[in-house]
Amino acid sequence: VTHSQHASRRIDQFDVVAFDADDTLWRSEDTFRYAEQRFLELVGPYAANGVDVEEVLHEVERADISVAGYGVKAFTLSMVRAAVRATDGRVPSLVVAELAELGRSMLLDDVHLLPHVVEVLETVSPSVRTVLITKGDLVHQTRKVTTSGIDHHFTDIEIVLEKDPDTYTRIVQRLGVEPDRFLMIGNSVRSDVLPVLAIGGHAIHVPYHITWEHERVDDHGVELIEFASIADVPIWLGLSDL
Amino acid sequence: VTHSQHASRRIDQFDVVAFDADDTLWRSEDTFRYAEQRFLELVGPYAANGVDVEEVLHEVERADISVAGYGVKAFTLSMVRAAVRATDGRVPSLVVAELAELGRSMLLDDVHLLPHVVEVLETVSPSVRTVLITKGDLVHQTRKVTTSGIDHHFTDIEIVLEKDPDTYTRIVQRLGVEPDRFLMIGNSVRSDVLPVLAIGGHAIHVPYHITWEHERVDDHGVELIEFASIADVPIWLGLSDL
Repeated sequence: VTHSQHASRRIDQFDVVAFDADDTLWRSEDTFRYAEQRFLELVGPYAANGVDVEEVLHEVERADISVAGYGVKAFTLSMVRAAVRATDGRVPSLVVAELAELGRSMLLDDVHLLPHVVEVLETVSPSVRTVLITKGDLVHQTRKVTTSGIDHHFTDIEIVLEKDPDTYTRIVQRLGVEPDRFLMIGNSVRSDVLPVLAIGGHAIHVPYHITWEHERVDDHGVELIEFASIADVPIWLGLSDL
Repeated sequence: VTHSQHASRRIDQFDVVAFDADDTLWRSEDTFRYAEQRFLELVGPYAANGVDVEEVLHEVERADISVAGYGVKAFTLSMVRAAVRATDGRVPSLVVAELAELGRSMLLDDVHLLPHVVEVLETVSPSVRTVLITKGDLVHQTRKVTTSGIDHHFTDIEIVLEKDPDTYTRIVQRLGVEPDRFLMIGNSVRSDVLPVLAIGGHAIHVPYHITWEHERVDDHGVELIEFASIADVPIWLGLSDL
């Protein structure tokens, strides 16, 4: 890998390296897509004439985000509301209960780490203060962190409502780090990259094969550091010659 | 009020005064009780023979807390599951949708401050670093804080998963305060008092007329500072001769 040949120890430019969690360290979006698929199978047969069940679900989801936020519980309540709306109430309540169970099982799902995550954290965390910054539900994110088997790599775990510049400002202040010495790594341009650059920090984009629709930023007009794999991060930091 | 006559400025013993929010600063439990009442009215008529609908709801709630946590979204999902279970699926899905709407309206409810809260914060917050520590859902608690009209009194707002000694230890470390100079005020002995005393802090119990069943501690065997009204707090701190 050529760009590692002359790598200085870029790690020395940073006091804190922060990782996003969902779809950066472990799979998340996949389970939502699976749940949507089940929703279509379960609710589709009862759909009112001419109704696009998937479109109703997305409409209800969009309307609910500002009220209930991101995360599995909000999504499950959206499925319940959408099922009844898309079928004018014809969906049996036993099917609705199955949607609620589906959400419950998502909350209890095992964590599936993405490839190379363990090695990357084992390489990075001994060299610099390593933290985790994730958006979403306190209960579910806490469960995932504590059952992930990788939580010992992080000195701090921040579960936040929204990843905007104000949130990142609060976090760097809490951590006592200058924005210029703060590096964020994540799969979302909107949540992990742009707001960090906005406060004068550094960010690396590691795209996930699925990017959630609400996470897309079409025209950000910023030059990004983007890696195909999280395994490139320690190389870029000068920590590895893999 | 006699105990204020010779009050020293007890406030000088503290670097941080922290307030709980739900049922300490604003009403919360009332809305859950109202929702339970609506649940019984809506679901009761479809109950299976010999089933105690209220008991089923409480059973489902208890089973769901460890999975979904506290808060309105978890409670709403419990109502959905309990409605179907208590009726063997006979409850119409339109009724289930009404339960989901009920939860949604709880998330959007106006904040109802409790009596004397504004005056207490206006008296306390200019004299000492004043923070808010609340348990529950990030989205809902954040909405309540930001629409409460009292958020400017707090230098820090901590929304936590569980109020146990570990959590309080993390908070006092973050705030950079010695436990002995930290005072917590709240309506729950289990969440606001005992864990704070356990880490060497101070706590005042201001009971709310409703205490949630899961919040009760029957035999704590600790002598508590307990006030009938939050208005007694500034008097005890030596800040007021009201």
